Amino acid sequence: MPNSSDAASGTEPTDLPKVDSPEALKQLPDDQLPLLAENIRRTLIECLSKTGGHLGPNLGVVELCIAMHRVFNTPRDKFVFDVSHQGYVHKMLTGRWDQIHTIRQYEGLNGFLLRTESEHDCYGAGHAGTALSAALGMAAARDLVEEDSHVVAVAGDAAFTCGPTFEALNNIAHTTKKFIVVLNDNEWSIDRNVGAIAKYFHALQTSSTYDHLHDKAAEFVEKVAGKTIRNFAGKVELGAKNLLFPNVIFEKFGMRYYGPIDGHDIHVLIKTFEFLKEQDEPVLLHIITEKGRGYEPAMGNPMKFHGLGPYKTETGETPSGSTPTYSQYLGKCLSDFAEEDEKIVAITAAMPNGTGLVEYQERIPDRYYDVGIAEEHAALFACGMATRDFRPFLAIYSTFFQRAYDMAIHDMGIQRLPVRLCMDRAGLSGDDGPTHHGLFDIGYMRHIPNWVFMQPKDEDEYADMLWTMANYDEGPTAIRYPRGAGTGAKPKAKPELLEIGKAEVVREGTDVALIGLGNLFEMAEEVKDRLEAEGHSVALINPRWIKPLDADCIERFASQCSVVCTFEDHVLHNGFGAAIIELLHDAGITTPVERIGWPDEFVEHGKPEILREKHGITTEAALEKISRHLTPARKDPEMVR
Amino acid sequence: MPNSSDAASGTEPTDLPKVDSPEALKQLPDDQLPLLAENIRRTLIECLSKTGGHLGPNLGVVELCIAMHRVFNTPRDKFVFDVSHQGYVHKMLTGRWDQIHTIRQYEGLNGFLLRTESEHDCYGAGHAGTALSAALGMAAARDLVEEDSHVVAVAGDAAFTCGPTFEALNNIAHTTKKFIVVLNDNEWSIDRNVGAIAKYFHALQTSSTYDHLHDKAAEFVEKVAGKTIRNFAGKVELGAKNLLFPNVIFEKFGMRYYGPIDGHDIHVLIKTFEFLKEQDEPVLLHIITEKGRGYEPAMGNPMKFHGLGPYKTETGETPSGSTPTYSQYLGKCLSDFAEEDEKIVAITAAMPNGTGLVEYQERIPDRYYDVGIAEEHAALFACGMATRDFRPFLAIYSTFFQRAYDMAIHDMGIQRLPVRLCMDRAGLSGDDGPTHHGLFDIGYMRHIPNWVFMQPKDEDEYADMLWTMANYDEGPTAIRYPRGAGTGAKPKAKPELLEIGKAEVVREGTDVALIGLGNLFEMAEEVKDRLEAEGHSVALINPRWIKPLDADCIERFASQCSVVCTFEDHVLHNGFGAAIIELLHDAGITTPVERIGWPDEFVEHGKPEILREKHGITTEAALEKISRHLTPARKDPEMVR
Repeated sequence: MPNSSDAASGTEPTDLPKVDSPEALKQLPDDQLPLLAENIRRTLIECLSKTGGHLGPNLGVVELCIAMHRVFNTPRDKFVFDVSHQGYVHKMLTGRWDQIHTIRQYEGLNGFLLRTESEHDCYGAGHAGTALSAALGMAAARDLVEEDSHVVAVAGDAAFTCGPTFEALNNIAHTTKKFIVVLNDNEWSIDRNVGAIAKYFHALQTSSTYDHLHDKAAEFVEKVAGKTIRNFAGKVELGAKNLLFPNVIFEKFGMRYYGPIDGHDIHVLIKTFEFLKEQDEPVLLHIITEKGRGYEPAMGNPMKFHGLGPYKTETGETPSGSTPTYSQYLGKCLSDFAEEDEKIVAITAAMPNGTGLVEYQERIPDRYYDVGIAEEHAALFACGMATRDFRPFLAIYSTFFQRAYDMAIHDMGIQRLPVRLCMDRAGLSGDDGPTHHGLFDIGYMRHIPNWVFMQPKDEDEYADMLWTMANYDEGPTAIRYPRGAGTGAKPKAKPELLEIGKAEVVREGTDVALIGLGNLFEMAEEVKDRLEAEGHSVALINPRWIKPLDADCIERFASQCSVVCTFEDHVLHNGFGAAIIELLHDAGITTPVERIGWPDEFVEHGKPEILREKHGITTEAALEKISRHLTPARKDPEMVR
Repeated sequence: MPNSSDAASGTEPTDLPKVDSPEALKQLPDDQLPLLAENIRRTLIECLSKTGGHLGPNLGVVELCIAMHRVFNTPRDKFVFDVSHQGYVHKMLTGRWDQIHTIRQYEGLNGFLLRTESEHDCYGAGHAGTALSAALGMAAARDLVEEDSHVVAVAGDAAFTCGPTFEALNNIAHTTKKFIVVLNDNEWSIDRNVGAIAKYFHALQTSSTYDHLHDKAAEFVEKVAGKTIRNFAGKVELGAKNLLFPNVIFEKFGMRYYGPIDGHDIHVLIKTFEFLKEQDEPVLLHIITEKGRGYEPAMGNPMKFHGLGPYKTETGETPSGSTPTYSQYLGKCLSDFAEEDEKIVAITAAMPNGTGLVEYQERIPDRYYDVGIAEEHAALFACGMATRDFRPFLAIYSTFFQRAYDMAIHDMGIQRLPVRLCMDRAGLSGDDGPTHHGLFDIGYMRHIPNWVFMQPKDEDEYADMLWTMANYDEGPTAIRYPRGAGTGAKPKAKPELLEIGKAEVVREGTDVALIGLGNLFEMAEEVKDRLEAEGHSVALINPRWIKPLDADCIERFASQCSVVCTFEDHVLHNGFGAAIIELLHDAGITTPVERIGWPDEFVEHGKPEILREKHGITTEAALEKISRHLTPARKDPEMVR
């Protein structure tokens, strides 16, 4: 095992082995494997200190990935990693070691697995709970062609709070006889000094619940005999209070359960996989790992090091942002409201940090619900509370709310239940890439009847909108807002109620009407300044409401101007600008509408500035589009294009 | 127990009791309750023979609903019925007995529960798996206000194949101490002659797995002592092979398990609920019921009588439709294709009948997968198979696919996996009402990159499109089609490949361009005939492709005509017509577009003809809208409205 202080010391790892393919890994002598693990850890700690990324989860699966690639043969065998944020080690072992320093950078490696990145990545992900189902599809396909390859799904314990994982478990036993699930259990820090494997196996064999396991367990013991394996049984017993899924449940689902074993003992893992690959029934291997293993700062703060930006290698310190984010304001505002209004409750699906509810959780613990990675349940639970006249705020990332889409229609919409949906990370999310961008929510929400939907131009307006939502009991409301901070406009001491469906006219004008939605209002403002400098009369509108639109306002400015330009951090199809076009068309107003927004393609990962430049979400692009309509013949609709 | 032949005999039930409220039910002497049950059954069998509806499920819960209303007090106590298609009896017992003959009829009772229909309906539904979560939200709310009321969730065994149900189970124990779940287990017909309750309870008490149940079980036995309770243990043991959720699992989730008990013994049910309402921990009651109980034809064919149209009371015979439905053609076409192409597989989420895959299941059993009510898993499983070069067809109703929406983006879209999505019941579904209409799928799909999306004008084109999908391996494809039959156009002997993105120009014309999507093409055709009769030159286009649109074709006709009119069985917001407006606007074409489609509201239940008339989805409405643009000044865009 690498010593954590060594790993972080920055000493040149001159004598440590490195591999550039699974074949090379298979050539390494056994005794080199722990050194390989050490080298992987050093490299990750060093590289990620510059790029940021999912350090903790990857440090936890170093031995697991080495053992898997030692025993199985990708791409013929298939590894499906749930969420796949723990895929860095797999990337390093499959020819991408030298590129790992580019991870999450524009044109560099993606922070998740991508089928287009390597033939060893058989399935990509970014959302939790998809691995078992997708892997089962692969296993069924393999069975149909009667191939003897293997499918291994790796999922963390959190994936077992998630509906699709259960749906998959429910289907495994009657679908295939050859299927390996690795439950990577890393929620609890593990005491290294727990018992001996013999004691655990003895318990396993004598426990009446495990009667039917007897022969298999004995065989398993025999296969790994002579190795030093730690007995995690005692600790797991403790952990089982939190882990929903004690092994007996897996057995009821028709999977043979093995474990728990030490997920950091490479040789035991190898022996175990060699044993499991011979089984002719679905198996679940429960391994215990430590998030952040081998790096003291990460082990001390697993939540912070789950995924983070750049840090100092020696200490793990990260530069602290001075401007509060939208998420942080959510926690603060809701806590303030809830202290005055006992009907307010807040619900998160395993994202108290990401959504900023940490402050709320501390201040209003009795009316705070974290339901696990279970967006559907979260949404329905909120509905249930709304029927009892509570005022639930449901904080979910835009991209993750896709999981609860049916509830937006079938439960909140049809029943007009006043659930308050706070869609964080709406718009481009940046480094995380296409699985995390929130670029589709206007498209999927605007046509649902009964919803009110809004986006603030800055943090102050955000607080006003949250307050307006808190006070609106007539039906469901949603607010979308971007990752990070906005303009930095500090909320007023007391938020103001906004009039629903009433846009803010920031500047009157008669040549050009700029409608800048939410975080792109700033860009519209810049465009206004540039056009005014050229002598044009420019109207600047902060629409605030995506639904209902302020039809009067938008129609008035569109009628009096030669061109309208909309700005949105969303795809153009079914987007905000498309709604404006539809509105004006139905009003018989033929003023051309230029639109700034994302194209009909999945946008890659990278810094927002780079991606905006590439895809034409810029002041310059807007000016260029608008200028086409400001030629001498600009008032004649037949000439504008 | 009512005798099935009596119940169906049509004898006037003059001496049978009837109640008009839960209070009246509580006043009835004990010995009248079985007679009340008999009256409910007679009434249901009689009324539904005219209206159609979910007969089987409701005949199965007569005693359950009587017992629940006898013991609890709605609206103070809350009953949440999963799916709520079994809510008819509850409606009859809560003041709607005399309206039950209007069920599923326009302006009559809805076929599911509706919060707007009665104060006793605390939660509506139509999709499976929402009850436990919503009920848990109600229980949490109740706990916060420290009220001593009860929340009872009733869910069928099928709901336990469904992700959200598991997510809810996972959250119950740490959320509340007072919560009752009734597992209504009706999948298997029950032998009435199984053992005695004592034997079952003895097994329960002596089984080592149930050690911790000992005291509670004893107390339970005592409470119901002296009553005749059937022992269903033996039968359940058999059923458990299919039922995923043997009771030990509930216990692991922190719920105290009771049962199984006879769900048709009113007095035992009453005693049991009286016992359960005193418990200070979450409980699950497992009851065994028979679908169609008391009506011989329904018991003999539970699948048919789950939900059906009108039938002859005496025999249960239904008039057989002579025209095959789109769903039936799916089964036939896919079977034909799959016999030639061993890469084709078909997947359903518990709807082999509804989606028409029954024929496929019989002809291609090895490549047929029914995964339960688990749309998310179904979608992911299809993705996994697609990565292995299989050609999965995923048949799901438009409204139910909302459950797998995330997968359409995160898995199929981003990874461009060639899953073939067959969206049945797209458009208005009619009698079932808002939870079942498929009016949002263009809105939620069109902005997802990489998808190809289509709708056929008739059954022959449907077969061509399925064939085109089978042969398209470049990315995901979706086809939407309505409930029932189309024009009746029989598919050709051999289907033809269609060119993707190429519309069919049925008639050239220069005054009016009619674009009739899918099942509304017929209406466009009628409008064409009417306009031609008036002397106008009318272009008629069958667009075929929702994505990609045939831009060249649509732009050409829009440019040469004075008005475009689109027809779609979908809401207008983010709909097909909106896409046409967006396309023409971006092409600088200002020809007005009139649109026929559904408004921005949830459309009620009723016969499609009535609802189309009410909401302006008619030939007349289209003619009226178009005529506005055929006045003398029709070429001047400033004058058209």
